[in-house]
Parts: sequence; C-alpha cells; structure tokens
Amino acid sequence: MALPRMRPISLKSERVDMSHGAGGRSMAQLIHQLFAKHLGNPYLAQGDDGARMPRLDGPLVMATDAHVVSPLFFPGGDIGSLAVHGTVNDVAVMGARPRYLAAAFVLEEGFPLADLARIVESMAAAAREAGVAVVTGDTKVVEAGKGDGVFITTTGVGELIDGVQVSGAHAQPGDAVLVSGPIGDHGMAIMAVREDLGLDTPIVSDSAALHGLIADLLAAVPEVHVLRDPTRGGLSATLNEISHQSEVGIVLNEAAIPVRREVAAACELLGLDPLDIACEGRVIVICPGARAEAALSALRGHPLGAQAAVIGEVIEDERGFVQMATSFGGRRMVDWLAGESLPRIC
Amino acid sequence: MALPRMRPISLKSERVDMSHGAGGRSMAQLIHQLFAKHLGNPYLAQGDDGARMPRLDGPLVMATDAHVVSPLFFPGGDIGSLAVHGTVNDVAVMGARPRYLAAAFVLEEGFPLADLARIVESMAAAAREAGVAVVTGDTKVVEAGKGDGVFITTTGVGELIDGVQVSGAHAQPGDAVLVSGPIGDHGMAIMAVREDLGLDTPIVSDSAALHGLIADLLAAVPEVHVLRDPTRGGLSATLNEISHQSEVGIVLNEAAIPVRREVAAACELLGLDPLDIACEGRVIVICPGARAEAALSALRGHPLGAQAAVIGEVIEDERGFVQMATSFGGRRMVDWLAGESLPRIC
Repeated sequence: MALPRMRPISLKSERVDMSHGAGGRSMAQLIHQLFAKHLGNPYLAQGDDGARMPRLDGPLVMATDAHVVSPLFFPGGDIGSLAVHGTVNDVAVMGARPRYLAAAFVLEEGFPLADLARIVESMAAAAREAGVAVVTGDTKVVEAGKGDGVFITTTGVGELIDGVQVSGAHAQPGDAVLVSGPIGDHGMAIMAVREDLGLDTPIVSDSAALHGLIADLLAAVPEVHVLRDPTRGGLSATLNEISHQSEVGIVLNEAAIPVRREVAAACELLGLDPLDIACEGRVIVICPGARAEAALSALRGHPLGAQAAVIGEVIEDERGFVQMATSFGGRRMVDWLAGESLPRIC
Repeated sequence: MALPRMRPISLKSERVDMSHGAGGRSMAQLIHQLFAKHLGNPYLAQGDDGARMPRLDGPLVMATDAHVVSPLFFPGGDIGSLAVHGTVNDVAVMGARPRYLAAAFVLEEGFPLADLARIVESMAAAAREAGVAVVTGDTKVVEAGKGDGVFITTTGVGELIDGVQVSGAHAQPGDAVLVSGPIGDHGMAIMAVREDLGLDTPIVSDSAALHGLIADLLAAVPEVHVLRDPTRGGLSATLNEISHQSEVGIVLNEAAIPVRREVAAACELLGLDPLDIACEGRVIVICPGARAEAALSALRGHPLGAQAAVIGEVIEDERGFVQMATSFGGRRMVDWLAGESLPRIC
C-alpha cells in the first residue's frame, strides 16, 4: 500500500508512543517501515485486516502462545525468535507441518524502536529458517508502566501429517520415553542472565524450530504415540501431564537424562531441579519400546537431535505417577512444580 | 484430563499469582477450573499443546488482534466479548466464515480471579452466539506493575466464502460507500466511562459479531468490492486506508452518516470528531453503485444493520483523498487521526 503523505520514523532514535497503536497515520507508518519490511510475504502484503491463503490439504492444527520472556534478549535468542520457535513447535508436536503464523504485539510506551526493530528482524529470520510465513499481525500500545517492553502472541496454523496420530493421551505401558537433547538450557540461560550468575561458560538457550527433526522422526517411526515439547514446567510438568492424560505411570532413569554440566551447576547454585527447567528446542518422544532404537537413530541423525537419549519407560499405573530411578539406586517421585520459582521464562 | 491431586482454587476470593503462569500444578488447575469449564468444546478438550480440527473446505483466512481495552468492563461489553467480536469481524470482512478462535491471556499478578471468571464467561457466551469454538489457548502471568489486569490476543481462522473477492484494494470509481449503522458508539462508550462524563443516556458499545450480517449481504450482493470494519481510527482512518490501497478518492455526504445524538454530544464535549471514533459492530461496504439499493436493503433486513445508510461514493483520484460534502454545502478533507487522542479503545 502506498503511504505518500507520511514522515518516515527514525528507528534508531525514536521510541514507541501511544500514536503507534492508535490506528492512525503513525501506526500505518510503523507497520509499513518495520513489520511489512522485515516480515514481507505475499499474504502480509495484501494489506487487509487478515490474510487469505490457499486451501490446506490436511486436517487443520492451531496453537497459540503469548510470549512475555524477561529479559527480552538472552544468549541464544530473543523474544522474536522465541515467539516463532515456541509456536512452530506447538504445531509440530501435534504431528503437523507448520505453515502460517499470526503475530500480535503489545508494546509499552517508551520502548526503543531500535530494540523493536532487532526483535522483528530476529523474528523474520527465525520464520524464514522455519519455512513459515508471518501472514498477518496486530500492534497495540499501552502506557508506560502498564506493560513491560514488548509482549508477542503468535498463533500457528498447520496441516496434519498423513497417518500420524500423536496425543498426550496415547502413551501405553511398554512404551519408551526419549528426549531429543540436554534439558534445561533455555530456562537456565534466562535465569543466569536474570540472576547475573557470571558463569565461566555462558549457558545458551536451546531455542529452535523442531518441525524438521520431528518430520524426520515421523518418517522413520510413524507409530510414535506422544510428542510434547517440555517448555514451562520442564520435563517434570510435561511428563506429569502426559501420565495423567494417558492414565499410565512413567519411570525415568536419572543416569540417562542428558543435562549439560554448566546447567546442572547453575541449577545447584540456585536450588533448582533440572527436571523443572524449560527447554525451547527439545521434544519428548514416546513410542512403542520395540521402536525405541529406530526413533533414537532418527533423532540422532538430525543436528538438533545429536544428543538424544532413551530416558525412561511407561508402566501401568492408573494413579499417573511419574517416578525416577536415581543414580544412587533409589526411586523418587517426580512431582510437577508447585510454586512460582521460574516466572516469565517464555 | 483428570487432575486428582489438585486443591480447587477459590474463584471468588483468590487473585492471580505468578504460579498461575508457571507451567506447574496451579496453572493446570486454573485452566481446568476456569478456561476448560466455560469454553469447553471437543477440540479444547483434547488437552494437547494445540488443537486438531477437520480439514476446511475453502481457502484459509487468518486474522489476529491483541485486546488491551481499558477499562476492562464497559456498557455493552467487556474485554472478553470484545476479543471474540473483534477477531470474528476481522475474519468476516475478509469474506470468510469464521470457524475457530485461539485465545492467549497475559494476566497481571494480583488481578482478581472473580473478574477473570466474568471475562471468560463473557467470552464463552460471545463465542457460542457467534458459532465459533475457542479451540486452544495460553495463559501467562506478569508481575504486578508489568501489565494491566488482562490482555487477550485472539486469532481467528475461517474459510473463504465461495465466489467472494473482497479487498481494500478493490474499490472502483462509481462504487457506493455504505455503513451498517451509527458510528462511534464503541469508542465513546469507553471514553464516557474513562472521562466519567456522567451522561443522562449512557452510551452503549456497538460491539457485536458481524458475520451473520455479512453473510446475508454477500448472499444478496456477491459482487461487493470492499468490506472493512471501522475499528481503531474510525471511519476516517479506514476510508483513508481503502482509498490508498485502491488508489481512488472517496467523497462522503456528511448529512447521510448516521451518528447517535448522545455520541455526537459526547464528541463535542471532548473535542473529538465522530469520524475518528472506533466502532466494534459496524461494517463499511463498498459495492458497484447500481447495487447500492440491494446492499442497503440486505443490511437493513438484519437486526445489526437496521440503521444502515449509503454515505458516499468512490471517485477517480490517484492521490487517494477522502473528502466530505458538509451539511453547510462546503467540502472538507477527511484526514486520518495523526495523534494519540484515543488509546486503548480495543
């Protein structure tokens, strides 16, 4: 859309003001100069109140995530890339090919436009890399002190991959439990910045789009029962959800769970359990025990799954308990996080 | 999903705390007790990270809207019903049948759960009335002072109605411009509460789902060129956007534009122009001049279009100017709102 009567905004020096969300000319200018420029694609370029795309072939999958991570920038990513990865992964773990994203921004008055530009550029790069288009969006502005820089809600639409039937309710006794890589990197990358831990080896978020890894896995082992990304609440919350949905028990093998040395050390320092810490680029896979080796080798064949491991098994237990065989030979309950120790991790 | 080991939350007396967004047990409890209960449908009940729906027949339409309206409750609605209507309408004005909504909540620590329950109930009622299902959602919590009660982003998916081709870029010289009812009710309902105007006749928001009205219109006049709901920025911003997208001029007839007496009076009191004030239940229709009467009678045949009017025409003008023939016989430019006079109206 041509905007001939506009004054260009200086993205270097200006800040978000209330007019950028007021539906008038400066909002149109911001959209034109920032969002349309970086996220540009034929659907977004339609310039209407929504986007029109061709018919999808398969059944429809939808997922949505509000992102309120603090700080906005962290080792290994920022709220822009995270908002793409988080929703792409939620669509992918449904057994679907992610296709389109919608993005809604709530900006705080006074937020530097230079930071917003970095975030939108990072979002655009993540979307390009994941092969999804940000087809439509919205921008609102709230007064200083009524928000926190920027919140981004992304909603993803995808089409179900033929023949795949995964659900948190499909775990069965005898199934194997796998994870695609070391746990807790994302959460501890955030916590290390927030608590200013000053680690020798900085912890880098694992934030990544998992649909490629998942497609490789499903091609090799289409009979996968459960896919779930252990985000908020980490492995413990995610496995407890699955065990409740499926009405089964899960027994983990502590020694087999991959945790980076620096993540384990930072957890100890802060009194946290790695099992409770969010990942943003890992997937839990539950499949028939007989297919565990095939699943493991499919995961390890992809760069994002190089450190995949079989970490436990599903057993009969109507109470839905998750337990862990510890490295000391004991067994303990793995409950999910009750408190509020890890707010705003995503 | 069964949640056997949970303590029920008191929705009457408790407030949002950080644990409600932390991915652990109390978040699961809140979802179970509040969101799942009121918004319940088979897709949401799947309990996975997203929702799985049957294949859509037509081309796909997506629209997203972040809602940050303040105050949260106002005459004629609240942020919950508004979040449904706003996105249903964005899908409908694309010429599509709205089908599914995703809803993402950003809650501020300390927000009363009783208010949240009212909002979710209102959202559920609006969705039922509009015939759309809220199929998936997300909840995040931010610290007190980092948000403002509740923000809700809704994303809608719909399927394009066969044979309809509407776009802001399709207005043509000779077309008629119609509006489905009085303008500015929503914006002035909000402003009247915010500025405590204490009017004799309270102004009630026009917030409503327009897909039924639009379906009736398109059945009678499938050759409609443009549909657009004049939300933020009101009639002036919306018509300026259309005139730029279509590279045409628009001439409005001031005397023909429906404005309620109380809305006009409140605007005068606050020094506002009704043309700049947001509606949330009105649609602008641009169609071939010869079909204007048919469009008008289709709109008037629906309860939400009883006061529809032909308010102007499209002319040749590459500069994309919007002008208005005033009631005094003159002609003035209708520019779009430059400043920030109406923040957080939706």
